[in-house]
Amino acid sequence: MSTIIIHEVGLRDGLQMEKQIVPMAQKAKWVEGLIDAGVDIIQLGSFVHPAKMPQMADTDGLFSYFTERNLQDVTLSGLVLNEKGFERGLACGVEMFCMGVSASETHSQKNTGMSIADATSVVLGMARKALALRKTVQASVQSAFGCGYEGEIPASRVIHIVERYLDAGIKHISLADTAGHATPDKVEELFGTILELDDNIECACHFHNTYGLGLANTYAAMKAGVKCVESSIAGLGGCPFAKVAGGNVCTEDLVHMLQRMDLRHDINLGTLIDLAVDVSTFFGREMPGMVYKTGPILAGEIIT
Amino acid sequence: MSTIIIHEVGLRDGLQMEKQIVPMAQKAKWVEGLIDAGVDIIQLGSFVHPAKMPQMADTDGLFSYFTERNLQDVTLSGLVLNEKGFERGLACGVEMFCMGVSASETHSQKNTGMSIADATSVVLGMARKALALRKTVQASVQSAFGCGYEGEIPASRVIHIVERYLDAGIKHISLADTAGHATPDKVEELFGTILELDDNIECACHFHNTYGLGLANTYAAMKAGVKCVESSIAGLGGCPFAKVAGGNVCTEDLVHMLQRMDLRHDINLGTLIDLAVDVSTFFGREMPGMVYKTGPILAGEIIT
Repeated sequence: MSTIIIHEVGLRDGLQMEKQIVPMAQKAKWVEGLIDAGVDIIQLGSFVHPAKMPQMADTDGLFSYFTERNLQDVTLSGLVLNEKGFERGLACGVEMFCMGVSASETHSQKNTGMSIADATSVVLGMARKALALRKTVQASVQSAFGCGYEGEIPASRVIHIVERYLDAGIKHISLADTAGHATPDKVEELFGTILELDDNIECACHFHNTYGLGLANTYAAMKAGVKCVESSIAGLGGCPFAKVAGGNVCTEDLVHMLQRMDLRHDINLGTLIDLAVDVSTFFGREMPGMVYKTGPILAGEIIT
Repeated sequence: MSTIIIHEVGLRDGLQMEKQIVPMAQKAKWVEGLIDAGVDIIQLGSFVHPAKMPQMADTDGLFSYFTERNLQDVTLSGLVLNEKGFERGLACGVEMFCMGVSASETHSQKNTGMSIADATSVVLGMARKALALRKTVQASVQSAFGCGYEGEIPASRVIHIVERYLDAGIKHISLADTAGHATPDKVEELFGTILELDDNIECACHFHNTYGLGLANTYAAMKAGVKCVESSIAGLGGCPFAKVAGGNVCTEDLVHMLQRMDLRHDINLGTLIDLAVDVSTFFGREMPGMVYKTGPILAGEIIT
């Protein structure tokens, strides 16, 4: 298996589930830790209306803070939901624009107030502008493996959306298992199909560990040829009060697995574990991640 | 993928980690629940000296209770560590004898007081007797994917032990990841090698979720051709006070995955979830299993 790129989404998909507002200085400290650890891509936040999601109100400020430093070894990404957010992203120096459409009509309506068709048009419009400005665009299909509202999602619907992305010149395609419904067999199958659609396609995966299958699905995606994994420090993302919400695949658990598979020894696992401990301390509760609690397996470890 | 056999080991590998003694009547109730759910094989306990492991003191009694009922649709297994335990197992009607050797010299010494070579001789002696009596024998290699004491374990050492098992006529071979060190790539590779050793070999896997890889490793084992998975109700098996102990793969999470993969719809997931809730209530703490907390994904579920 080739080297896997880590796209940290904890500050966006993780924090948007948290009621306790994280001050910008704290976010910046966590981002600095992620940069120090050697994470490849860090999603700083989403450009959503601050009244709708106060936790994301400082996304522009966070971008300005980091883009002014002209960092070389990390890509900073931001999620944009509409033209207004896209303009905000351009203004504060976003390098990589993430955007997406749900493959579930019900989820699309609830999440964006638009049908899949209308939401796709909005995304394609933003993507074309971003690509013309030589920005990196990653387009995702949300609820690609099932939907909490609709249940099963036909693969044909996911493929159709991806084909629209490819037609618009988007090469970075992410499939997101928003509801945590994916199983590794279906992950291998759907990513296998998607990767055959275009020679230059680069796939990313985004799994939630709602039913304990986050890393199993990640491994299946890697087997299918996925090169980029979206994950969340400490496994942030699970709302402790929701019945069927689960955290993202946990970054440090993922890196631990990769290192045990002789991949990504260039990422500092110890730094990630320290960060996860810090996140747990901040929120004052145990987080879903395993390795920050057990400690990593050390080479030649002797336990007496 | 073909149908997967579930071997429930919670009453043995799970409970032996628990300080709170479970009365035999409570164990029997859980076993009855597992039988009702349709689990294929249930390990009732181990035949170890009661003073060494009081939690297993009623294993003989539990076997007598169930073997007298002459159950048809379930196999009851017991772990035997030595000749004395084997005789006890024979006396109380064990149908399937499980036994094993560690692939780690240090773990073997600490666990049995014997070298790998000596422990192998003991196991082969018991296995030959059991096979002569037409009992089913499953022989396992413990610490097959790494050891908390020794670190990496060479695959050649595992293969050598398995070859000894095969020479003795044992067809049911389990590889146990005692320390939770396995990664899915190595699982696929090692089981692939083992399954090529003999046409009639039937492999089982036994994973601990210490570092979050239990189901990922299980999926990898299934890909390699493993037909039997050892798992533990509620994910029992993790000692909450040990630094690097983790629970077994959780039975109801496994069955949930299998059913989402269109396998084992004949097992009643609801009954398993009720059991996991009961186990959690008994021990008065949250267990590692996910699905007993989230509830299963229901076909065509509509969440409003």
